[in-house]
Amino acid sequence: MTETTATRIAADPGYLRIATEEAFATADMLERYRALVAGGKFDDPGFHSLWGFYLSSPSERARLIIDRLQNLGEVRLQDMAASGIHHQVLSLTSPGVQVFDAATARAVASAANDELAEAVRRHPDRYTGLVAVPPQDPAWAAKEMERGVHQLGLKGVIINSHTHGEYLDAPKFWDIFAAAEALDLPIYLHPNTPSRGLIGPLLEAGLDGAIYGFGVETGMHLLRIIVAGVFDRFPKLQIIVGHAGEALPFWLYRLDYMHAASVKSQRYANMKPLERTISEYMRENVYVTSSGMPSAPAITLCQAVLGVDRVMYAMDYPYQFVPEEVAMSDAFPMSAQDKKAFFQTNAERVFKIQPAS
Amino acid sequence: MTETTATRIAADPGYLRIATEEAFATADMLERYRALVAGGKFDDPGFHSLWGFYLSSPSERARLIIDRLQNLGEVRLQDMAASGIHHQVLSLTSPGVQVFDAATARAVASAANDELAEAVRRHPDRYTGLVAVPPQDPAWAAKEMERGVHQLGLKGVIINSHTHGEYLDAPKFWDIFAAAEALDLPIYLHPNTPSRGLIGPLLEAGLDGAIYGFGVETGMHLLRIIVAGVFDRFPKLQIIVGHAGEALPFWLYRLDYMHAASVKSQRYANMKPLERTISEYMRENVYVTSSGMPSAPAITLCQAVLGVDRVMYAMDYPYQFVPEEVAMSDAFPMSAQDKKAFFQTNAERVFKIQPAS
Repeated sequence: MTETTATRIAADPGYLRIATEEAFATADMLERYRALVAGGKFDDPGFHSLWGFYLSSPSERARLIIDRLQNLGEVRLQDMAASGIHHQVLSLTSPGVQVFDAATARAVASAANDELAEAVRRHPDRYTGLVAVPPQDPAWAAKEMERGVHQLGLKGVIINSHTHGEYLDAPKFWDIFAAAEALDLPIYLHPNTPSRGLIGPLLEAGLDGAIYGFGVETGMHLLRIIVAGVFDRFPKLQIIVGHAGEALPFWLYRLDYMHAASVKSQRYANMKPLERTISEYMRENVYVTSSGMPSAPAITLCQAVLGVDRVMYAMDYPYQFVPEEVAMSDAFPMSAQDKKAFFQTNAERVFKIQPAS
Repeated sequence: MTETTATRIAADPGYLRIATEEAFATADMLERYRALVAGGKFDDPGFHSLWGFYLSSPSERARLIIDRLQNLGEVRLQDMAASGIHHQVLSLTSPGVQVFDAATARAVASAANDELAEAVRRHPDRYTGLVAVPPQDPAWAAKEMERGVHQLGLKGVIINSHTHGEYLDAPKFWDIFAAAEALDLPIYLHPNTPSRGLIGPLLEAGLDGAIYGFGVETGMHLLRIIVAGVFDRFPKLQIIVGHAGEALPFWLYRLDYMHAASVKSQRYANMKPLERTISEYMRENVYVTSSGMPSAPAITLCQAVLGVDRVMYAMDYPYQFVPEEVAMSDAFPMSAQDKKAFFQTNAERVFKIQPAS
């Protein structure tokens, strides 16, 4: 970061900057990722593309990310100070424990949640944490969510899209939704690389990662959840997606039109009528964040179609630790009130963060 | 269409409405589609999902579409009059001839181009036509493009995304780009259902079609073309994509950021530095249309990030023959000048349509 950049970030812009999609990793989990990459038995081309790169690339980008992911102490706090971030909502980085067998996933998630809770206890005014869960074991995941809230003081759940190629619209996962609704815990549906059935021509062209594949995988996952009727069954459930809503806010008209046309013409046996339109679920059960998308046209579109209460700031630290982008987000063409909702008060409400006095 | 609707479409709004992504089909091609659907040998799950539905569904939607696709005469002209459309830019419906073997594809394309040219000759003030080509035979395709322009009076090229799972970024297809550039013919890159390597979890959930899969397939295809350096090799080539640019205009910031990061860190051996940024190619080599997306937030975003000269109107007749949507598009919040560019003058320039006197 240059001195010029630092001076461009206002120290007191009239709101606190709460960043809502910020990543960490435990050393234990990264060691296990290393073993999966090296082992030659784990058959998930997206995982190999993503973590094969980060764990072996000599590039500055990869080395900084691996280093910063594992730091929940002074280095992270200094980076936050240098980029004007008051508070981070932290989650175990993608794909979390979702690549392991169930027993390993339970053990790694439990330890990661303990480690995160300890960091939050040390810096309660700087960090809020989300519970990592293994969808491989939905009943255990539901219990871990309860432990996360009641014993660890965590404030939401992180799930990194598909788990061994399966998606949360399958009813076997719905214990997780039931627990989230009962505990009033929002679920952050974070990208994973596209699953095996989706990744082929994306991977061929180097488009499987954050450039495009993440959005395809995660936008599709949220759509699957909606069209399966999850929000009819769990009407109070709230799901958060990053990257300007993975472009679903842009697509709303077509989603509504084509869903209605498909249902009316009975094109798919498993596409049943829903109680509300897709855009209504998006406005009533979905929050979006600006992670990776400090783009005024995209974020103001999200506010226009979802409402200003549904759009929150995120940096995507350390993957997109770009202080200049904070200044870009500060400059979004919004009223002072809307900007405070975007940077601060929406996140305080959604994650039950104690408002700063 | 109700009388109320009809009265809501202004007869003389101050511009002509030129619709740029309007479909037709020859009876011969639909018979061949019917044989592919019934034959049990053609292994393209997206084709079976799409054309299995349209060719067998008793729904009003499917029956209307099959009927209207085959009409280039009075019925179509009446529908245009009833919905305030002055002029249609016509193309052979998706996936065109791209599902056939090369010999069949050549024969069906040639006959379809003759049939389309005849309709244009009968109604030159109402129709403009695009050349259908078989990417299966790029050299023949290039010759058919020349015949299309010089003998048939056609004004562009239609290609429906993947051909047997292959994409146009592969250099074996680049004769088509060379011919398009040499003949100054824009290529309309229309959706196809996602290819086999991309369709798995979309198809499972009924999301493979226009609701979402079309956008994923076609957005990815254009990105593959860009990152392969096609526009560096053919800098004057112009590609048109529908459906508000298949959401790429929304993603521009992330596309630029992540492409630069991938190139700099050398993550992919085949992702080479380009002469310009992805957003620069989008602004200089790509047009987008509003087919299926009569959405003010989406279309005004496209205009804001690409420029008003890069965004054109389309209805997507007969797939989305919704006269109410014409009134919605008329009501877009644009200056009179920008709206005339959107509905009329951009299309006149791009497709070399003789301006109405």
